[in-house]
Amino acid sequence: MSRKIILTGDRPTGPLHLGHYVGSLKARVELQDQHQQFVMIADAQALTDHADKPDMIRQNIFQVALDYLAVGIDPKKTTIFIQSLIPALFELTTYYLNLVTWNRLKHNPTVKQEIQQKGYGDNVPAGFMVYPISQAADITAFKANLVPVGDDQVPMIEQTTEVVRKFNRMYNCSVLVEPEAILSNMARLPGIDGKAKMSKSLGNSIFLSDTTDVVAKKVKSMYTDPGHIRIEDPGKVEGNPVFTYLDAFGKDKAKIEELKAHYQKGGLGDSVVKKYLLEVLQSFLEPIRDRRKEFEQDKGEVMRLLREGTEVARAAADATLTDVRAAMGINYF
Amino acid sequence: MSRKIILTGDRPTGPLHLGHYVGSLKARVELQDQHQQFVMIADAQALTDHADKPDMIRQNIFQVALDYLAVGIDPKKTTIFIQSLIPALFELTTYYLNLVTWNRLKHNPTVKQEIQQKGYGDNVPAGFMVYPISQAADITAFKANLVPVGDDQVPMIEQTTEVVRKFNRMYNCSVLVEPEAILSNMARLPGIDGKAKMSKSLGNSIFLSDTTDVVAKKVKSMYTDPGHIRIEDPGKVEGNPVFTYLDAFGKDKAKIEELKAHYQKGGLGDSVVKKYLLEVLQSFLEPIRDRRKEFEQDKGEVMRLLREGTEVARAAADATLTDVRAAMGINYF
Repeated sequence: MSRKIILTGDRPTGPLHLGHYVGSLKARVELQDQHQQFVMIADAQALTDHADKPDMIRQNIFQVALDYLAVGIDPKKTTIFIQSLIPALFELTTYYLNLVTWNRLKHNPTVKQEIQQKGYGDNVPAGFMVYPISQAADITAFKANLVPVGDDQVPMIEQTTEVVRKFNRMYNCSVLVEPEAILSNMARLPGIDGKAKMSKSLGNSIFLSDTTDVVAKKVKSMYTDPGHIRIEDPGKVEGNPVFTYLDAFGKDKAKIEELKAHYQKGGLGDSVVKKYLLEVLQSFLEPIRDRRKEFEQDKGEVMRLLREGTEVARAAADATLTDVRAAMGINYF
Repeated sequence: MSRKIILTGDRPTGPLHLGHYVGSLKARVELQDQHQQFVMIADAQALTDHADKPDMIRQNIFQVALDYLAVGIDPKKTTIFIQSLIPALFELTTYYLNLVTWNRLKHNPTVKQEIQQKGYGDNVPAGFMVYPISQAADITAFKANLVPVGDDQVPMIEQTTEVVRKFNRMYNCSVLVEPEAILSNMARLPGIDGKAKMSKSLGNSIFLSDTTDVVAKKVKSMYTDPGHIRIEDPGKVEGNPVFTYLDAFGKDKAKIEELKAHYQKGGLGDSVVKKYLLEVLQSFLEPIRDRRKEFEQDKGEVMRLLREGTEVARAAADATLTDVRAAMGINYF
């Protein structure tokens, strides 16, 4: 695969967890060697449904940046930047909003589902309704042709593609680039409660920044097979998050297969499997924790890296905006 | 009245006409001596319903600027600027969109009426639906406390006031300034066809840039009292645009009263009144035409004035954006 441009990122609404690692961070660490990667801390997007909590967003920008650096996203290879500090994104959003009908926004399946989940009723903030267009601006500003997404985010890429085609057709140009979705090939990591998704708001997450004690407590409390009551009972491995986590983070695949067989046959207690999972997770998290601590002690350095990345991103987005204005013929001076 | 900040402007979708002069330009020439006045050429707003015609907008920016300079808006006293070159406006719009519900936008009376007039049906561009919020950004960016509007625009000022209050309350600050509408005290100028409003799209306008010949032809074709058939018939003065124009532009009030009385009594032909109106209009338009010609011959100078005004406006809007980001606590560096 030839070198491509990737745009990806996170809303800074909380620390990142193991689900983020499996779903996206791991891939970013690999992709940064093959492609030009932009990783966006989407503070402006976070404000669309947290307008009343800018302090929370501010604090999480730093936390998310620490998480990135801790897992090995390397600012020498990846451009990490803060969305709201790229003025071109706001301007592109404005022009793209003229190319999309109000009705089309209303029918975005991802947004519709989120509105329901958030229980907005008639009080959806207008900024929230238009965030797919702001995403189109994010993606196109960097001329990204690869966007890693979960399958629930595919409609967002479709919306961007529509904007790209409409813009290029209307202004008879090829300035904007159609993105391609890369679907995460790893299944979503379940929560420690066994629910389908690890999510900060569900309180079922193990965070990359959790201390060893907290991780131990969380693993101990994990949901397993509710039918596995006595040690000698046969237990289920499918839908048992303890085994899902082992598959995701364990290196000794033979040992894991052995444990699975033993558990299914009966005679293997949950506490033994959990103890092993804890070892696996601690050895996975330890180097991350160490790097996190280093960066944490030098806040100035983290802010400097963020500022540098933001400058690089700003120049890239400004170049696209210049092309966009020229294509529209509104480059007056 | 103490010195205030005024924001006003026009969408560059066509040359300005006598109706613009009576409704706003005249007041601007007077107000620029008493207040700090920002006059915005609203190209970004024009794109919300003319996304497919950026060339038309580009050309009209220059024409509207010429109209401004020709009527006596003085760039030494008034800051004339181009909206899309003020990046802070796009960013402020984005933050304000989070403070307004989608539902609220849908119920803006001005926008509802315009949607009907434009026959959009289900195809309203999203950018058009959100333009009241973009206006809130325009007004607040310059901390304008006076906004001259027609009575159909009052809901726009109310929307801005709502945004200002919500922002200041949510972020516990007094950064944004509530605007006050100045309602034009002059009745709207009718079209030459007698319709209530002079409007480019109705084809019933006399433009400030019309040549003497064109003005002569338009005045000759003007609608008068349809009941005034023979010269000796009594004629109506009310609803007769020839007399409305005389009231608006004529200086010899005694002569106008005399003509009105004669017309109402009977015995005064339309052609005589029109001939006098033509004199009045030509002597009103002549100095405007002369100044226009001067500036027209020096396009570089007009562009220089626009660029200078835009720089002043950008600095003012940037200062507000800095305050806004500080109030929200998203001033990271």
